[in-house]
Amino acid sequence: MGCQAAFDEAGAVIFGAPFDSTASYRPGSRFGPAAMRNESYGLETYSPYLDRDLSEISVCDAGDLELPFGDPRPALRLIYERSREILSAEKIPVMLGGEHLVTLAAVGAAAEKYPGLAVIHFDAHADLREGYLGEKLSHATVMRRCYDLLGGGRIYQFGVRSGDGEEFAFARTGAVSMTRFDFRGLHDTVEKLRRAGIPVYLTVDLDVLDPGVFPGTGTPEPGGVTFEQLRLAVGEACGAKIVGADLVELAPTLNGSGVSTAVANKILRELLLGIL
Amino acid sequence: MGCQAAFDEAGAVIFGAPFDSTASYRPGSRFGPAAMRNESYGLETYSPYLDRDLSEISVCDAGDLELPFGDPRPALRLIYERSREILSAEKIPVMLGGEHLVTLAAVGAAAEKYPGLAVIHFDAHADLREGYLGEKLSHATVMRRCYDLLGGGRIYQFGVRSGDGEEFAFARTGAVSMTRFDFRGLHDTVEKLRRAGIPVYLTVDLDVLDPGVFPGTGTPEPGGVTFEQLRLAVGEACGAKIVGADLVELAPTLNGSGVSTAVANKILRELLLGIL
Amino acid sequence: MGCQAAFDEAGAVIFGAPFDSTASYRPGSRFGPAAMRNESYGLETYSPYLDRDLSEISVCDAGDLELPFGDPRPALRLIYERSREILSAEKIPVMLGGEHLVTLAAVGAAAEKYPGLAVIHFDAHADLREGYLGEKLSHATVMRRCYDLLGGGRIYQFGVRSGDGEEFAFARTGAVSMTRFDFRGLHDTVEKLRRAGIPVYLTVDLDVLDPGVFPGTGTPEPGGVTFEQLRLAVGEACGAKIVGADLVELAPTLNGSGVSTAVANKILRELLLGIL
Amino acid sequence: MGCQAAFDEAGAVIFGAPFDSTASYRPGSRFGPAAMRNESYGLETYSPYLDRDLSEISVCDAGDLELPFGDPRPALRLIYERSREILSAEKIPVMLGGEHLVTLAAVGAAAEKYPGLAVIHFDAHADLREGYLGEKLSHATVMRRCYDLLGGGRIYQFGVRSGDGEEFAFARTGAVSMTRFDFRGLHDTVEKLRRAGIPVYLTVDLDVLDPGVFPGTGTPEPGGVTFEQLRLAVGEACGAKIVGADLVELAPTLNGSGVSTAVANKILRELLLGIL
Amino acid sequence: MGCQAAFDEAGAVIFGAPFDSTASYRPGSRFGPAAMRNESYGLETYSPYLDRDLSEISVCDAGDLELPFGDPRPALRLIYERSREILSAEKIPVMLGGEHLVTLAAVGAAAEKYPGLAVIHFDAHADLREGYLGEKLSHATVMRRCYDLLGGGRIYQFGVRSGDGEEFAFARTGAVSMTRFDFRGLHDTVEKLRRAGIPVYLTVDLDVLDPGVFPGTGTPEPGGVTFEQLRLAVGEACGAKIVGADLVELAPTLNGSGVSTAVANKILRELLLGIL
Amino acid sequence: MGCQAAFDEAGAVIFGAPFDSTASYRPGSRFGPAAMRNESYGLETYSPYLDRDLSEISVCDAGDLELPFGDPRPALRLIYERSREILSAEKIPVMLGGEHLVTLAAVGAAAEKYPGLAVIHFDAHADLREGYLGEKLSHATVMRRCYDLLGGGRIYQFGVRSGDGEEFAFARTGAVSMTRFDFRGLHDTVEKLRRAGIPVYLTVDLDVLDPGVFPGTGTPEPGGVTFEQLRLAVGEACGAKIVGADLVELAPTLNGSGVSTAVANKILRELLLGIL
Repeated sequence: MGCQAAFDEAGAVIFGAPFDSTASYRPGSRFGPAAMRNESYGLETYSPYLDRDLSEISVCDAGDLELPFGDPRPALRLIYERSREILSAEKIPVMLGGEHLVTLAAVGAAAEKYPGLAVIHFDAHADLREGYLGEKLSHATVMRRCYDLLGGGRIYQFGVRSGDGEEFAFARTGAVSMTRFDFRGLHDTVEKLRRAGIPVYLTVDLDVLDPGVFPGTGTPEPGGVTFEQLRLAVGEACGAKIVGADLVELAPTLNGSGVSTAVANKILRELLLGIL
Repeated sequence: MGCQAAFDEAGAVIFGAPFDSTASYRPGSRFGPAAMRNESYGLETYSPYLDRDLSEISVCDAGDLELPFGDPRPALRLIYERSREILSAEKIPVMLGGEHLVTLAAVGAAAEKYPGLAVIHFDAHADLREGYLGEKLSHATVMRRCYDLLGGGRIYQFGVRSGDGEEFAFARTGAVSMTRFDFRGLHDTVEKLRRAGIPVYLTVDLDVLDPGVFPGTGTPEPGGVTFEQLRLAVGEACGAKIVGADLVELAPTLNGSGVSTAVANKILRELLLGIL
Repeated sequence: MGCQAAFDEAGAVIFGAPFDSTASYRPGSRFGPAAMRNESYGLETYSPYLDRDLSEISVCDAGDLELPFGDPRPALRLIYERSREILSAEKIPVMLGGEHLVTLAAVGAAAEKYPGLAVIHFDAHADLREGYLGEKLSHATVMRRCYDLLGGGRIYQFGVRSGDGEEFAFARTGAVSMTRFDFRGLHDTVEKLRRAGIPVYLTVDLDVLDPGVFPGTGTPEPGGVTFEQLRLAVGEACGAKIVGADLVELAPTLNGSGVSTAVANKILRELLLGIL
Repeated sequence: MGCQAAFDEAGAVIFGAPFDSTASYRPGSRFGPAAMRNESYGLETYSPYLDRDLSEISVCDAGDLELPFGDPRPALRLIYERSREILSAEKIPVMLGGEHLVTLAAVGAAAEKYPGLAVIHFDAHADLREGYLGEKLSHATVMRRCYDLLGGGRIYQFGVRSGDGEEFAFARTGAVSMTRFDFRGLHDTVEKLRRAGIPVYLTVDLDVLDPGVFPGTGTPEPGGVTFEQLRLAVGEACGAKIVGADLVELAPTLNGSGVSTAVANKILRELLLGIL
Repeated sequence: MGCQAAFDEAGAVIFGAPFDSTASYRPGSRFGPAAMRNESYGLETYSPYLDRDLSEISVCDAGDLELPFGDPRPALRLIYERSREILSAEKIPVMLGGEHLVTLAAVGAAAEKYPGLAVIHFDAHADLREGYLGEKLSHATVMRRCYDLLGGGRIYQFGVRSGDGEEFAFARTGAVSMTRFDFRGLHDTVEKLRRAGIPVYLTVDLDVLDPGVFPGTGTPEPGGVTFEQLRLAVGEACGAKIVGADLVELAPTLNGSGVSTAVANKILRELLLGIL
Repeated sequence: MGCQAAFDEAGAVIFGAPFDSTASYRPGSRFGPAAMRNESYGLETYSPYLDRDLSEISVCDAGDLELPFGDPRPALRLIYERSREILSAEKIPVMLGGEHLVTLAAVGAAAEKYPGLAVIHFDAHADLREGYLGEKLSHATVMRRCYDLLGGGRIYQFGVRSGDGEEFAFARTGAVSMTRFDFRGLHDTVEKLRRAGIPVYLTVDLDVLDPGVFPGTGTPEPGGVTFEQLRLAVGEACGAKIVGADLVELAPTLNGSGVSTAVANKILRELLLGIL
């Protein structure tokens, strides 16, 4: 998909993190990166929205990590190392999940490189649980772990429409900034961060989309945003100083028609054109 | 799904009516109640729309009826008996279909208990045929049979976008109140019924939704309402004095990705929080 | 589906063109016409949008052509002959694809019969490539070939949201009129054509729809129009003097739930009621 | 599929009985006849097993009955009438189910025409229950009802591998002749019937096949016979004086790959070549 | 499925272990136990092979464990505890997986209770790796871990047809007894163990079956045994003194037709009738 | 899958020919090569049948050809060129189809290099039609075209169980040697060819397998050989002097469970180990 630059020349480096062992509902996001590559030949490199083409930018596809399944710690370590390597070279890592827990390792590496890092987070779920089924490392706790790492006031959530009562209560304490259901206020948030020169990691859990257009995900939540809303929001977010990004929770086997993978690839194209 | 109250303590009692023998197109709604239970662990009990949790109300799950397939009469009798039993205990029956014909038995029981009963009906189809393939008892005739039972001016239909010409002509006689395509006028209808103290049975044929977000149904009709529209309409309807309700026509095997079942469960959550 | 008129009495003649050999991504549109017939018993003949019934018009279903697979030339010749035969009898051919390349033969026949023919084209893709994988006859070049045939200023595209940069550049030269993303300006275009008495061929690539509601197509493009938008646009287009039409790119096997076929049939019903 | 003879010229008449309302497990056999027709173009008319071609015999395809769903009585009446009509014309009815209950009506018509009728029955299930879920007319009771009709010693079952203990006990009384698991003794049974000039109705519940090769059926039973065993058994059975036959319980939607329909069609071809 | 005895009265206790986090290929065996319960109503309790009925024995269904996903250690601990509890009550635990790693915990508990325990192991895969993707606890190492626990000469493998060269070399050292491809020698092994009074744990990885009849598993291996072979082998194995057993690696979502679940349930029925 | 040798070092060179435009029934074999690569990580490189490992031989994976769809001539030219290139380097081309027509080009190249070439052909279908739907180049005519190329007595068919009467009559003239249904006589044929030093091209249409174990193919034919029979036959055939080979007609999208791709990969492994 027009991501054939060598590592040294690239402004952004894509890699896959095919891990889904803590998925509590339906696994399958491990197949996300491979599906996106397989189906990428069906996507045009030209964006009629931006009137730009992937051939105008330099992106390196570094392939997928080989991650062990089961205990998430070894996998997170490998993701952290790959992210750090890319960041050290002053490039932007763009990770393709995998379940959302993989974000923790990439955010960790980015926060080391960029103190004061903020996270913009698009998701149907708050992911703010303290623990889940007795585990602290889970797709359902990942933003709480990022909060532990980054401290209060650093995470900006949009589109959240599901969680338990405690997660919403936690957000109301101001520990994180949560916008429910949609992207209201995103423009102002981005402006604020941009003006303050704050580096931003953008994590997009694709289940923020309505499952009508994106059924291929482990925990579908009716009532989500449209493709057009997400496309515009990603473009908006790219107004900030993006230093890392990911797209997670595509589970292609749950969507026989292949539409979800097409959606993910198109969002990826717009994201890459937005950050470079 | 947080519906673990004992019968005696419950304000509403859920039961499944897994019957689909008169389905003329694609059967499969018999699997609806089981799918909703199996998938319910994927749904949060907390509603961010209402800021309420199922743990705050008392709902009893009375399981599924064992219904014989084929001739609908024995099945309707069993549904009628279960509904009457729940109504006698001054509780609200919430039935999970099955095909829409099951509504006839529950409405029959409710009308006995609550003379003057009105029905609010969300559906893509008018279901007002006098007969269908020579049969009077059919998913396609159920509202006409309810009309036979309740008399004129008692049924309020919303979202109807399919039927034969005679059904629409019948509605134009004023025998029933039919709003085509969407929920315009629902607020006023509910207000009118509420002020008059009229007891209401709410029947939601989930195929009122657009098949984009709800493909798992036997007779999908393009051009339906969004999840958000239905969620708001269910909330609106709960402003009336609801004495019985149902969700019908989920056919989960027609939707491999499981999204339709997730939709049904979320509407059920909002319905339960709305009526209790 | 109420299309049982004899050829001689019919105002429009439906035929299937089950060909998909140049499909470069996912084949399967060859099964489109058969699926539409098989599923047509699930569709009402009455349109609540138009308050008209298919029984009020005369449509002949001429069945499907038997087309050889592989080299498209023999198939195109057979389609051309069938179209010419229908046009000679002063009837409107309504072709069910098949891939979009089949349109070339039908447009060819219509342009012979009606000099000065214009084409209204609804599609997610520009289909304006000069060649594709070395071939000049392809679903991806079909509108360019129509342009070769009809000359400049004769093709009006709506809903286009995908293509390579050269296709969009070609459109910007004015060779064709392209409206991106939606149907803005359709009303004015139709009015202009109608007033000028220009005969119009309407080709509807169903992938103009959002894949949320129409996943059953070979090259799904997120970000498309809604069913309601397409339904209205088809009605709008029927304000012109339609002399031929087609619906193409339904690939039913890519959509297990059958919704896409239901969508195609409903659009067909509205189209037939609109042109007769 | 080479079944294009006119009714008057035909030796056998095929018709579909798309009814499955008493299916207690997974419905879908209503789609069997349509699937067999749709897929028949994928089958050669020539049998290399018999070195004969369907073009050498005269078979009329009378299409599918339009049967109401729900109560089985009206459907059984229509099947009885169609069967009687074919039998009166001295032709062999070959019915395509539909669930197994449809056999009852066809056997009833055959027994009227041919007193002393015997039934050869291939099936995974005994279908000898006295009642099922309170109903006497069910796919699970059909052979018991045939027994009620024909009397003892008239039914020869082969391949049975599932039932409740009472069904097997009933068979051990000698009321019916049951061969468990396979076709042992079929040759001798056929010889005996042939010599005695006894007219035979052959009913093939396709679930007698192993679900490995025939997954498309409502109640799959592991441990069944191979395609080759069934093909040979059908050929063997055709040594008797067959006056009617059916193939039932193909539920094509339960087998996405279409193999089960191909199996059914090939068995049908061998059956037709065997009885004419 | 006729497993409604109370714990105290039961001879065997079934429980589900829905864990699949180390699955390296296709996950989904977590859904195995739930699918087996949901589909069990489609299976007769009577076995025509054994002429016995589940109603003649006492089996308790203790439901499924709630296991955290990710790190396998907490899940194994919970399985160990449940197994120990059942064994302490002098009952036979029958575990439904889940992936094969769950066997390690149940074998651990059984070996504690029954020193000198032997394991009979039916599987397509040797599962004898020392480590897999850097992990020691994996579905691909489980028998090596059992060997670590039990010592040499205690594991009898049958049906193995896949592994890396080192696993087969390990078996050739005599550390375990491996019969490749089928069940040759099973009878003698069982006799030897029975005569020596050695307690036996029977672990059945259902992928020992040919994927033709059992496609619903994460790592299908063509060339497996038939249902009939496995049924007979399970019966044979029950000639030993079975003190624990499991059926693992059913991944029902990989088999849309539901046949694999039916296979698993039928093997479970024969197993229960064999050990009690 | 252990095929990582450089071209120069390799004894055999694998390449994909993803073409299926003449498929007359169900297309999809274009996805065969990609599926085999994607799934190859699920297959062990070690063969317990042969006690050999792919790491012991040198195979180069040259990737897939980029073939235009539609007219088969350009695709056949590209296949011919790739085959010739590999043959010129004194290596064995092993082609992964794609539909069976691709074999024609590879056989053409092999016959040029090796005059006197014979073809061993495993297939459910005779593929000996003179023309098909008016075309001479088709999957259904490919062996007739090979016969035109090679002359009489050069083609040895095994496993054929479908075709029209003329194809079988053609075979009976002795133009080709056809063994119906199975592999009887293969050993003697191989011996004869081997002794005579005749170079052999082996073409395996995977639909020779029973669709129970190989449903993922466009034209499934019940009554085929088992995996074990095919595995043995491939091994047997490798006793001849194989100078080229192919596996064709895997259509992975027709088999959701992925078993067919696993079958194809395992046969490929045994084939590679057999010819090197």
